[in-house]
Amino acid sequence: MTETINVAVFGAGRIGNIHADNVAQHPHACLQYVVDVHEPSAAQLAARHAAQVASVEQVLADPGIGAVVIGSSTDTHADLIQRSAAAGKAIFCEKPVDLDVQRARACAEAVRKAGVTCMIGFQRRFDPTFAALKGRLDAGEIGEPEMLVVTSRDPAPPPASYIARSGGVFKDMLIHDFDIFRWILGGETVSVHATGGSPGLPEVAAAGDISHAAVTLRTRAGSLCQINTSRRAAYGYDQRFEVLGSKGLLQAGNVRPTQVVAWGADHIASDKPEAFFLERYRAAYALEIAHFFDALTHGTQVRTTIEDGIKALELAELATQSWREGRAVECSV
Amino acid sequence: MTETINVAVFGAGRIGNIHADNVAQHPHACLQYVVDVHEPSAAQLAARHAAQVASVEQVLADPGIGAVVIGSSTDTHADLIQRSAAAGKAIFCEKPVDLDVQRARACAEAVRKAGVTCMIGFQRRFDPTFAALKGRLDAGEIGEPEMLVVTSRDPAPPPASYIARSGGVFKDMLIHDFDIFRWILGGETVSVHATGGSPGLPEVAAAGDISHAAVTLRTRAGSLCQINTSRRAAYGYDQRFEVLGSKGLLQAGNVRPTQVVAWGADHIASDKPEAFFLERYRAAYALEIAHFFDALTHGTQVRTTIEDGIKALELAELATQSWREGRAVECSV
Amino acid sequence: MTETINVAVFGAGRIGNIHADNVAQHPHACLQYVVDVHEPSAAQLAARHAAQVASVEQVLADPGIGAVVIGSSTDTHADLIQRSAAAGKAIFCEKPVDLDVQRARACAEAVRKAGVTCMIGFQRRFDPTFAALKGRLDAGEIGEPEMLVVTSRDPAPPPASYIARSGGVFKDMLIHDFDIFRWILGGETVSVHATGGSPGLPEVAAAGDISHAAVTLRTRAGSLCQINTSRRAAYGYDQRFEVLGSKGLLQAGNVRPTQVVAWGADHIASDKPEAFFLERYRAAYALEIAHFFDALTHGTQVRTTIEDGIKALELAELATQSWREGRAVECSV
Amino acid sequence: MTETINVAVFGAGRIGNIHADNVAQHPHACLQYVVDVHEPSAAQLAARHAAQVASVEQVLADPGIGAVVIGSSTDTHADLIQRSAAAGKAIFCEKPVDLDVQRARACAEAVRKAGVTCMIGFQRRFDPTFAALKGRLDAGEIGEPEMLVVTSRDPAPPPASYIARSGGVFKDMLIHDFDIFRWILGGETVSVHATGGSPGLPEVAAAGDISHAAVTLRTRAGSLCQINTSRRAAYGYDQRFEVLGSKGLLQAGNVRPTQVVAWGADHIASDKPEAFFLERYRAAYALEIAHFFDALTHGTQVRTTIEDGIKALELAELATQSWREGRAVECSV
Repeated sequence: MTETINVAVFGAGRIGNIHADNVAQHPHACLQYVVDVHEPSAAQLAARHAAQVASVEQVLADPGIGAVVIGSSTDTHADLIQRSAAAGKAIFCEKPVDLDVQRARACAEAVRKAGVTCMIGFQRRFDPTFAALKGRLDAGEIGEPEMLVVTSRDPAPPPASYIARSGGVFKDMLIHDFDIFRWILGGETVSVHATGGSPGLPEVAAAGDISHAAVTLRTRAGSLCQINTSRRAAYGYDQRFEVLGSKGLLQAGNVRPTQVVAWGADHIASDKPEAFFLERYRAAYALEIAHFFDALTHGTQVRTTIEDGIKALELAELATQSWREGRAVECSV
Repeated sequence: MTETINVAVFGAGRIGNIHADNVAQHPHACLQYVVDVHEPSAAQLAARHAAQVASVEQVLADPGIGAVVIGSSTDTHADLIQRSAAAGKAIFCEKPVDLDVQRARACAEAVRKAGVTCMIGFQRRFDPTFAALKGRLDAGEIGEPEMLVVTSRDPAPPPASYIARSGGVFKDMLIHDFDIFRWILGGETVSVHATGGSPGLPEVAAAGDISHAAVTLRTRAGSLCQINTSRRAAYGYDQRFEVLGSKGLLQAGNVRPTQVVAWGADHIASDKPEAFFLERYRAAYALEIAHFFDALTHGTQVRTTIEDGIKALELAELATQSWREGRAVECSV
Repeated sequence: MTETINVAVFGAGRIGNIHADNVAQHPHACLQYVVDVHEPSAAQLAARHAAQVASVEQVLADPGIGAVVIGSSTDTHADLIQRSAAAGKAIFCEKPVDLDVQRARACAEAVRKAGVTCMIGFQRRFDPTFAALKGRLDAGEIGEPEMLVVTSRDPAPPPASYIARSGGVFKDMLIHDFDIFRWILGGETVSVHATGGSPGLPEVAAAGDISHAAVTLRTRAGSLCQINTSRRAAYGYDQRFEVLGSKGLLQAGNVRPTQVVAWGADHIASDKPEAFFLERYRAAYALEIAHFFDALTHGTQVRTTIEDGIKALELAELATQSWREGRAVECSV
Repeated sequence: MTETINVAVFGAGRIGNIHADNVAQHPHACLQYVVDVHEPSAAQLAARHAAQVASVEQVLADPGIGAVVIGSSTDTHADLIQRSAAAGKAIFCEKPVDLDVQRARACAEAVRKAGVTCMIGFQRRFDPTFAALKGRLDAGEIGEPEMLVVTSRDPAPPPASYIARSGGVFKDMLIHDFDIFRWILGGETVSVHATGGSPGLPEVAAAGDISHAAVTLRTRAGSLCQINTSRRAAYGYDQRFEVLGSKGLLQAGNVRPTQVVAWGADHIASDKPEAFFLERYRAAYALEIAHFFDALTHGTQVRTTIEDGIKALELAELATQSWREGRAVECSV
């Protein structure tokens, strides 16, 4: 009979709560500890799942803990990965590994040395629509993929204070899209071009970032990717992509809360997309955690490794450079 | 603090399993017993939720049991409702109350006398799309409802043996649609016309039933409803309706598993609707059970009462009569 | 080389203008005369096409006229058909042949006796969407047709004065839908049921008619048709139908003026359907006139004969009877 | 009363035929001459409209000719524009003015000096969907435009021989999209980046061109445009764009031949887009010619001037340079 894996969740914020709830649902995972610098948040989340509040040290020292889920703030990821790896724990860590590529690589090295499983939370790969598209692409439905167009927009920009320490739009937002690009088109990236601005959002510019970006990537095989993004879309959270292949096109559309359509005197109206990432990727968050524990249980590989996390980060860094220097950057990623 | 309600589930078949899982998810419900004439099914379901297998008698005799969920075969509903009511249990019962209106009325009487809560499982009212439409209708978005068109089709007919004891298509399938009609248009029904046939499905005709039916209802207020149904739709499970109001139209569409759209050499293709009722109404089943326990917890009314069950059954009976006699039937339901 | 057919158009109103313009476009038709009791209308239309104003007598006496197009008011149709047939002219006549079935039959008899071509303007059969659906149905794409659902709604009711002499909603509006039913499902009709009311439109009731109707037809082969109609749809002109077959479903949707979709803070909005029949069926009107002259030129049969016009009228009459008597009517049409 | 403008059409190929037919439809234009180096083509087109075959010299020497429509091959445009301008004729010319920017500028100078009207055939601005979107954008429906995404794909590549003298994908195909960009976002372009390849189409690479391109443009105001294009889309002709504004999004979708939707065992399928530019832009071609003659008749400005033609050409040239040099190009267009 399969043994249960005892789990600690680092971070009791919005995403930590999601992960903890999904851990609690998994038949072979048992949420044991919740860790957060903000004690009341940890306590509340722990109480909901009959878990205990603990410190990082307690978690890592407890030999009964088989896996940790890192959902704390980005600046804590690298340290927690390295210490958890050293303690022999399997690791699930939210993206990004770190804002600094060197530190991220050190994490990967620590993971390799410890021989532990480390999965990075690129939940979009687990979204039912995106995953179905990928499956059909892999099955050859549209032949060879040639061109990918990604639309990725947030409903509203975060506070300027957040933006200032976010690592910039390419590491903060587009890291997911870079992962989608790698997942869908595959192969080696040889050129990155990024440009952008902050039309109508001077506070974003003042924070040293841009709100609107247009990125173009080219692979060695000659396939192309365009990503358009913005930190503000008045109509909500927009998450679509489409792949042109030699035999057709596959589109992944937004998800709407309901299928109600209203025909009125002015127009025919349907729902806006799901409000934001927690709603849009609800199923994906559950499926990625299930995948992590299934992989641990069956001793199989996880689908989104720390190497994937580093590659996406490298692309984000190249895009940042391209934008800052106003030129296309050649590379080999 | 809210007390937990201990629950017994009658029936460990497909729908019993769904209900039991949803009971287990509810924060204020605890699945204690599973009852089924087929012992292994009961045992398997009980094991999944650390519940016990029990007999009807044990359940009803246990004063710790606050509510029962009846998901066993239709012919057991009336007896279980009456005995559970007599035992003072709150009751959630799958539709229909019974195939016989008189027996159903006796159940309602028993429930009234015992003063217990009794909710009938018209889960469609809890479907997010249908419920959103109803909310917008009630908010006056399209003025007064004037005409309802319901499309309700199963992917494939059940075995002839099932059809023979199903009570016929009107009681077996359309009872849900009659409830939708009552819910959306409201008011007193004054006329029922039903006709149909079994094109291409002689086995349905041989079982004394029809596979395809067209029903028209008129209310005293002058609003109209047309229901078209079939036991076979090669493209899957089709569950749509639309309401014409004085100021516009509200449509409730099917739900698709994914939002992938494929553009190929022949056409542009999207997913078929969700496969069947378990998939299509997954959320609805969870929400109706949540509603039941929320109502018990807060002492509020349930939304789909045994009276709703009886009214839908009466309409099904009138439709059956109309079809059999080949004439429109005047009524007051 | 193909000879040109000289044509007279009776009626210079809205529909007469449409037909005249389409006659003028046809390479083998030449618009020679325009006839209208309202002289200035006739003059204006004639001027636009360098044609002459004439009387009915002049037209029928002119041996150079090969065909007449009757787009004058309904009460003139029968007389013009009979006289034109007697004069040996090919006839294109707007629906309905007449409001009275006996008179319509007399027209058919006159046409038969004269051996002239007579086409009735059921333009919907020429609509590109409807015609494509019909072609795919005939090609067997969805197997045998089993059930037809027709939605047919006008944007707003005509004046009460028009309604009073319109022949009622079944002859005035649904005659087109009865033709669609015959065209799509074919076969002999054995039962007609119609009911309706005038919710929110007392002026329609006062004119002795109903604004909202629900019709059900059954064929000898066991296929079913439901038609829902209303003289008012706040969102515009609604012209859809769908056919369930043994292997799938074919839907014919509305046509929108543009493909603009607006994503805003409240919803995602697309265009309403084309405003009314002149816009919706613009292509159909052109194609039916082209079909008429092509048939005359090539000596082939027209697709919508006077017999089709009479059958649709008979169904409209049966529906009227069903509604008035509150019962399903058995028939053989 | 408005005088009729006598017109000569240069070029009796595919596009010349379209223009000639539309000229013939216009109430104030009269097609007098058809000119083509291939005499039989000219004769056939002329015969259809009771026009005469003529030489360039004859046309330009005839003082009765008020306007010329240039639909001959690209390498003849500049010469015909200059000579027609010198002869005082109003000019409608297919895009591009010329493949060489200097020659195009010389044409603009000749037009200016002669003081004649010269309209360039950017027919997309007259497409009902695109024009409706533009009108709503100008009306402020989505606030300030910030980002434009254009998808522009041909069904299949032209022969390699055509490609070799086409001026390359940017001047041949994307010139339309550069015009859309200027029309929708407006303002001064400060940066152009283009990249591409010919995945799976080595014959295009062999002709010195690319089949797939990704272009990014930035305006001085900070708005962004991404264009993705390919010379091959297995599913047909794909012509879409969408504009993100500060208050919402406006999308212009493809046009489908019919509104038939087929629900089958595998998927729900709708029509592919209109087959190619002649079908997709049929209405646009008619409307642009009507606009040209309306402008001449009323003495108003044409909407797509020779300056627009030159600007689009300059952007195409910058894109070509960017692609060739592998870098973003700064500019002021």
